[in-house]
Amino acid sequence: MKKLINNPDDFVRESIEGMALAHPELIKINLEPNFIYRADAPVANKVAIVSGGGSGHEPLHGGYVGMGMLDAACPGEVFTSPTPDQMLAAAKVVNSGAGVLNIVKNYSGDVMNFELAAELALSEGIKIANILIDDDVAVKDSLYTQGRRGVGTTVLAEKICGAAAEQGYNLKQLADLCRKVNLNGRSMGMALTSCTPPAKGSPMFELGENEIEFGIGIHGEPGRKRLPLVSADEITEMLARSILEDTGYTRNLQEWDEEKEEWVELEITDPNLEPGDRVLAFVNSMGGTPLSELYIVYRKLAQICSQQNIHIVRSLVGAYITSLEMQGCSITLLKLDEELLKLWDAPVKTPALRWGI
Amino acid sequence: MKKLINNPDDFVRESIEGMALAHPELIKINLEPNFIYRADAPVANKVAIVSGGGSGHEPLHGGYVGMGMLDAACPGEVFTSPTPDQMLAAAKVVNSGAGVLNIVKNYSGDVMNFELAAELALSEGIKIANILIDDDVAVKDSLYTQGRRGVGTTVLAEKICGAAAEQGYNLKQLADLCRKVNLNGRSMGMALTSCTPPAKGSPMFELGENEIEFGIGIHGEPGRKRLPLVSADEITEMLARSILEDTGYTRNLQEWDEEKEEWVELEITDPNLEPGDRVLAFVNSMGGTPLSELYIVYRKLAQICSQQNIHIVRSLVGAYITSLEMQGCSITLLKLDEELLKLWDAPVKTPALRWGI
Repeated sequence: MKKLINNPDDFVRESIEGMALAHPELIKINLEPNFIYRADAPVANKVAIVSGGGSGHEPLHGGYVGMGMLDAACPGEVFTSPTPDQMLAAAKVVNSGAGVLNIVKNYSGDVMNFELAAELALSEGIKIANILIDDDVAVKDSLYTQGRRGVGTTVLAEKICGAAAEQGYNLKQLADLCRKVNLNGRSMGMALTSCTPPAKGSPMFELGENEIEFGIGIHGEPGRKRLPLVSADEITEMLARSILEDTGYTRNLQEWDEEKEEWVELEITDPNLEPGDRVLAFVNSMGGTPLSELYIVYRKLAQICSQQNIHIVRSLVGAYITSLEMQGCSITLLKLDEELLKLWDAPVKTPALRWGI
Repeated sequence: MKKLINNPDDFVRESIEGMALAHPELIKINLEPNFIYRADAPVANKVAIVSGGGSGHEPLHGGYVGMGMLDAACPGEVFTSPTPDQMLAAAKVVNSGAGVLNIVKNYSGDVMNFELAAELALSEGIKIANILIDDDVAVKDSLYTQGRRGVGTTVLAEKICGAAAEQGYNLKQLADLCRKVNLNGRSMGMALTSCTPPAKGSPMFELGENEIEFGIGIHGEPGRKRLPLVSADEITEMLARSILEDTGYTRNLQEWDEEKEEWVELEITDPNLEPGDRVLAFVNSMGGTPLSELYIVYRKLAQICSQQNIHIVRSLVGAYITSLEMQGCSITLLKLDEELLKLWDAPVKTPALRWGI
């Protein structure tokens, strides 16, 4: 294992300490339990947006704490869910009284712990709602999930809901908005190489010299299939087709309804991507793939969307939700309406995403 | 070789085509000769800032084209200098009449070609000045250079000179400013792994399982020495010490003096870093090292600077000058005065660096 680390047990703590030292104007951290929060928290009269998950996906989530995005992020150990005490402590620090929206990637551990944290928060009088992100079209169930995994759309939901919270959306409106982003976002990823969690010390999985994992999860968990390595254009075509041809996924979600003050079962179905739709196209590095290659993927994706009469009106290209040093990429297409477009364009000021301010 | 590419011969063209498709509001490209330029070029009454160099260091330089930074970037083939015809064609497109500043990393091919391009531009009536960046403290001469190599300070010089150009600095003032940034910046890097240029198809060099290359160049060229892999804190200590203890490097530079209209020999010496100095601390990924590890390096660097009474007042942490998928990092410390600080903070809007707008 070749990494810039000290003791693997200190990996997460030292990394977030470094973040806090590098961005003191934007963020603060709390240790034991670990969370990263806005330096100016709580922001008066604003609903707080909180997310979290296993570490190893940086800049997700800690890099997105700041004005116009998250109020707090709870990092677990690498590829391990954070605990309810982290989530509860973060909620208490960032809650202004307007409530807390938890954006939760659909992994069993994250879902269970955020549900428990929400119940604890509620019992302490904090208004709270949990919204799941389950946008990965690769597999229906996986090693760590019931239902689809939450991947690239998470970044977009955090940005869009963060902007809406700044603009005064209340908790119910934010929960509805987050659900809408999730339904309109679809992702698909692939890996050229594996990755090595520091505490494990060995690769998550093995790939042959000419093999790729198509439909990879962000923890190195298996996707749809293994394939021989082909060209960037062919890989992009396969990723894009998986997204464009995905239709009508229906899931049963259990979400906290802060008005009814109870968990409710929701059956919701994705709208299809149709010719004429406007989208945000997000080409993401799994960590170790350089920007030059991402733009080669983006080039082909733009050609495919153009042929399908899907209009890319916004783009995001870079390493935004990663799997340590894994080489590979994912594509996310988010169908946009006027509301989402306007919120995407709103100012944001975080360590990893910044514009307009 | 596992990469997201098509034909290696098309790597650079397809990558910059993807960039142009992803950022149409910011940049345009010209093919044959290849260069990337501001969508709104030429900007009236503004000196144009141009840079360039071999590809494989993305986002450098193309990702820094836009308001407040570069007017054009000339990408060569991977790890290969761009040609004078690219530089001349770019200069013609972005020159508003106020002249062109070329920021040139000190590699023999880049230096020779930018000198030739400047002479050609001058013969066509374009005011032009070339300023070299030679900030790498690792080695005095190297495989591709006479004198020190140009590395991390290049990014900072492009940002700072770009801001100054927006604020109306003339060509002479910009040349002096760029030289000042170079003198006040020092860098040192290391590699955990090698990298593979697409056309070569095999790694630039081999490193043992527990070996690192200390003082690596951004083309994989050898640095000071090979060492056994040690902890992030020890590596950071070695990198930081190399910079902090570097004193009084004197170089003879041949630079184009646009007032005298001739190449002049300059003998200039770096100012030392002293206790009480304020610096910008830049921790850079060589491409394949994830952000989580960079923050572990930043953490130790902040501790070391604090012990030395060097005040870090600005930071930059991420993959800004890379060597394809190489794992490793570099540290740059730039001594700041009020002028540099103000210019660093000015708005910038490029594909890879954006704030304030």
